Amino acid sequence: LDEFDLIDRFFRRQRVQREDVALGIGDDAAVVRAPADGRLVVTTDVLVGGVHFPAHTGPSDIGYKALAVNLSDIAAMGASPAWATLGLTLPDPDESWLEHFASGFLALAERHCVQLVGGDLTGGPLCIAVQLTGIVGTSGYLSRGGARDGDEIYVSGTVGDAALGLQVVDGTLRVSEQDGAYLRGRLNRPVPRVELGRALAGRASAAIDVSDGLVADLGHLCNSSRVGASLEVDALPLSPAYRRALPGVGWEAALTFGDDYELCFTVPLGYVDDVERISRELDLPLTRIGRVGGDKVTWTMEGEPLSLSEHGYQHFRK
Amino acid sequence: LDEFDLIDRFFRRQRVQREDVALGIGDDAAVVRAPADGRLVVTTDVLVGGVHFPAHTGPSDIGYKALAVNLSDIAAMGASPAWATLGLTLPDPDESWLEHFASGFLALAERHCVQLVGGDLTGGPLCIAVQLTGIVGTSGYLSRGGARDGDEIYVSGTVGDAALGLQVVDGTLRVSEQDGAYLRGRLNRPVPRVELGRALAGRASAAIDVSDGLVADLGHLCNSSRVGASLEVDALPLSPAYRRALPGVGWEAALTFGDDYELCFTVPLGYVDDVERISRELDLPLTRIGRVGGDKVTWTMEGEPLSLSEHGYQHFRK
Repeated sequence: LDEFDLIDRFFRRQRVQREDVALGIGDDAAVVRAPADGRLVVTTDVLVGGVHFPAHTGPSDIGYKALAVNLSDIAAMGASPAWATLGLTLPDPDESWLEHFASGFLALAERHCVQLVGGDLTGGPLCIAVQLTGIVGTSGYLSRGGARDGDEIYVSGTVGDAALGLQVVDGTLRVSEQDGAYLRGRLNRPVPRVELGRALAGRASAAIDVSDGLVADLGHLCNSSRVGASLEVDALPLSPAYRRALPGVGWEAALTFGDDYELCFTVPLGYVDDVERISRELDLPLTRIGRVGGDKVTWTMEGEPLSLSEHGYQHFRK
Repeated sequence: LDEFDLIDRFFRRQRVQREDVALGIGDDAAVVRAPADGRLVVTTDVLVGGVHFPAHTGPSDIGYKALAVNLSDIAAMGASPAWATLGLTLPDPDESWLEHFASGFLALAERHCVQLVGGDLTGGPLCIAVQLTGIVGTSGYLSRGGARDGDEIYVSGTVGDAALGLQVVDGTLRVSEQDGAYLRGRLNRPVPRVELGRALAGRASAAIDVSDGLVADLGHLCNSSRVGASLEVDALPLSPAYRRALPGVGWEAALTFGDDYELCFTVPLGYVDDVERISRELDLPLTRIGRVGGDKVTWTMEGEPLSLSEHGYQHFRK
């Protein structure tokens, strides 16, 4: 089997065939048509075996997550994902591995109407580079730079689960079978908040996805917006599984690990009611965790200031 | 130095600031604006250390080539390159390596007015994933699928030099110092034929870039176009350095190795004069090497049929 056969066999069978794709996989490049407004968002994220996921992660989960982390970036911009390219490097052209990888990737692509329009398959160490282009809707896009003093700060879903999921996978955290399955799922199958991002466009003043940890990512948002903020650790939304593990693991995982791919966003007071409505409509908790203001980012716990490393998850782990 | 500092230091200092980029590096995704016509081409190519280039290749050459191979795909579509993203995985956040890599990448980007709009930097085995989006001009785009019986087949520049360049680097081919420098340059600094591709749009019936070897790539073109072709090995354009090495190395390198990133294209008879004019205007040899027709692809040498493996360069090298 050579590169062309493999791409043919596993990726050309995708079911998504977008009307705005004039020429898909199989030429030197794809040809797509941007909408009349013309505004697109462009992102790329790379997953490396042993760095971004444990080496023994199942190929279907890897395929899913490689697309999910990119969808999360598009979500944080409030855009609709459209076209993906995939650069896949793997040690062996193992058919079973590829089939499962493709199934995880393509199932998530289908859910978000994303068409894979280009691919490059190479022998080498396991490395998955996905690039995703999205379409900006009529409400415009979200960025990190629009937060203003007085805005409320929210985070979607729950935070810290992926961190505990990794500890479960590593064997360093023991929990019930049910909690273990939940936490592993949150690590391997994060749900990109695409619908939320779209609903927030035109309402939230700034947004970022929580990939590097809440402390680091809120730092990026506040830096870009040139604002400070007051955050309350006690307000962080934790899952029941995290709450059960909390006495042992503490708050650090929820604050600094990342990999949850929730959205953290700021909302002017006039739009707070909209946030509650969106939360109900999407059946997704959106929790207020602080407020924009001051000249630095401060965290408190039970009213007392908390000292935190300013850095969340760093990609150059030693 | 963390990921953000490194990206800041080495990639944000690019000089290209396109008017159609509303938001560049530094948010969850970039925001760009497609032209009124809306048609874009999208491609991705990944380079892996030890697979696509010898492990000891200089970082500036690696940075150059990672972009060049993607520019070559955009060239084969007859489009104008516009926005790039870079997923870079490297074993150590070595500042000197990154500075040279960025200088090779950004110098070529500047030459083609390409803006880097997104990046992801990770620790891991050396792997460079570039994604490039281009804009289709008013003459439309080229594809592999438009060749028709009777069209003339051309290739730009010279073929086989990169193959010999690798042999020089490997130490398996001994040539003069001057020829060695030329051949290594062709391996490490291939010139993407962007201007040629644009000039051919609306004139050539099909095009492909020679990345996998002329035999394989012509096979792809003929497959996509559902045509056969007659090719003459004697007509292949060889550089003076290749001609001097020819008695020892033979024709195989020119036929099956690839990595030259020349364009191979087919032209209806009515446009042959245009090809000669374009060749003069670009000061670039465009050589007729055969004709479309028949029901398979045949190669002759001194009038005799030649038997060839149908496969060019395969990415899963053992």
